[in-house]
Amino acid sequence: MRVRVDLNISLDGYAATTDQTPDDPIGRDWLRLVDAYTATRTFRERVLGDRSGAGTTGVDDEYTAAYFEGIGAEIMGAGMFGLHTFPDDPQWKGWWGDEPPFHVPVFVLTHTAPRPSIEMSGATTFHFLNTSPGEALARAAEAAQGQDVRIGGGVSTVRAFLAAGLVDRLHVAIAPIVLGRGEPLWADLRGLEAGYRVTSESSPSGVTHVTFSRTGHAG
Amino acid sequence: MRVRVDLNISLDGYAATTDQTPDDPIGRDWLRLVDAYTATRTFRERVLGDRSGAGTTGVDDEYTAAYFEGIGAEIMGAGMFGLHTFPDDPQWKGWWGDEPPFHVPVFVLTHTAPRPSIEMSGATTFHFLNTSPGEALARAAEAAQGQDVRIGGGVSTVRAFLAAGLVDRLHVAIAPIVLGRGEPLWADLRGLEAGYRVTSESSPSGVTHVTFSRTGHAG
Repeated sequence: MRVRVDLNISLDGYAATTDQTPDDPIGRDWLRLVDAYTATRTFRERVLGDRSGAGTTGVDDEYTAAYFEGIGAEIMGAGMFGLHTFPDDPQWKGWWGDEPPFHVPVFVLTHTAPRPSIEMSGATTFHFLNTSPGEALARAAEAAQGQDVRIGGGVSTVRAFLAAGLVDRLHVAIAPIVLGRGEPLWADLRGLEAGYRVTSESSPSGVTHVTFSRTGHAG
Repeated sequence: MRVRVDLNISLDGYAATTDQTPDDPIGRDWLRLVDAYTATRTFRERVLGDRSGAGTTGVDDEYTAAYFEGIGAEIMGAGMFGLHTFPDDPQWKGWWGDEPPFHVPVFVLTHTAPRPSIEMSGATTFHFLNTSPGEALARAAEAAQGQDVRIGGGVSTVRAFLAAGLVDRLHVAIAPIVLGRGEPLWADLRGLEAGYRVTSESSPSGVTHVTFSRTGHAG
């Protein structure tokens, strides 16, 4: 079992942006960050349900395919799930519709009152935890049944797991744009590379895939 | 004539660091930033005078060789030349010894009293200007006689030329380390990519070479 993170960031290290609104929860800057990712054939098939074979292949698609492989459970922050945007809606079931693209147990970290778990179509169940990163990881690892656990986001949640030394593989897809605003991935992570092997692979799209792999773990 | 910049930065966008002292003007963090660059055969030959053929070849060396080609003049800030570290030494001739590695006219931007130009061995002459980036560039372009002008650094000088839209080609070698401190290259440069083509090339060293090329310019 490995703990994996995949993020799309800008050259200046912003992994999410502050231009979201309730009407535009993703944000225009974010759409630019994920431009090459959402153009891939795998994204179109796995997330949009497009079976036509349309979409890019190559380096970006290889990383996208790997993203979807071998995940047994996911952990995300309350903000990514939407609890900060819709704090007063006890029926809120996330941004992703009736069949979210996770297809595994998803553990949502929240400091608010506990909510009952929500079973969705397609094997996604949302569980709500008010606990530490380490304890949440123990719960998710058990649910993953030997497969990997993904820390899905948002940035503050990812940073908490990185700072706690709990991440085995960090993959960042660096888009060739300077955003100048948003939530910084790298802040206060000086020396993160210690204990990791760091590799870089460029795509013709202009995106650079940088991977931190824990020394001693395969892959 | 193009205006070129080459910088070594960390994943979190720091191009220079704040750990310099008069006894250690370069800084330990900076040495880590330029690790792959200083290991190249071209650096060893052109900067250290090592004709033995030692040093790495490949992607990093190709960028290093390109760095030295076609430059007719250089512009640098007062800090890079050393005027902030040794403000009271009218005899200060820079950090680089009797034969600096520039071999072209170098224009040092300073707000202090004008100094006479200094002729060094090996065709380097230091000129001191108290003027705007645009006017300094006009002087340097004339001296470059059709060849390119490099904005050598430091970061604040590079940022001033980028913000003024005066740079035709920006090459950053991104080292696979998180410094967490230093002088940020990208701050306040949101949207820098507009008007440039941005390409990325990875090296086995883990360094990623990202190049902003002004649309409409060859190369």
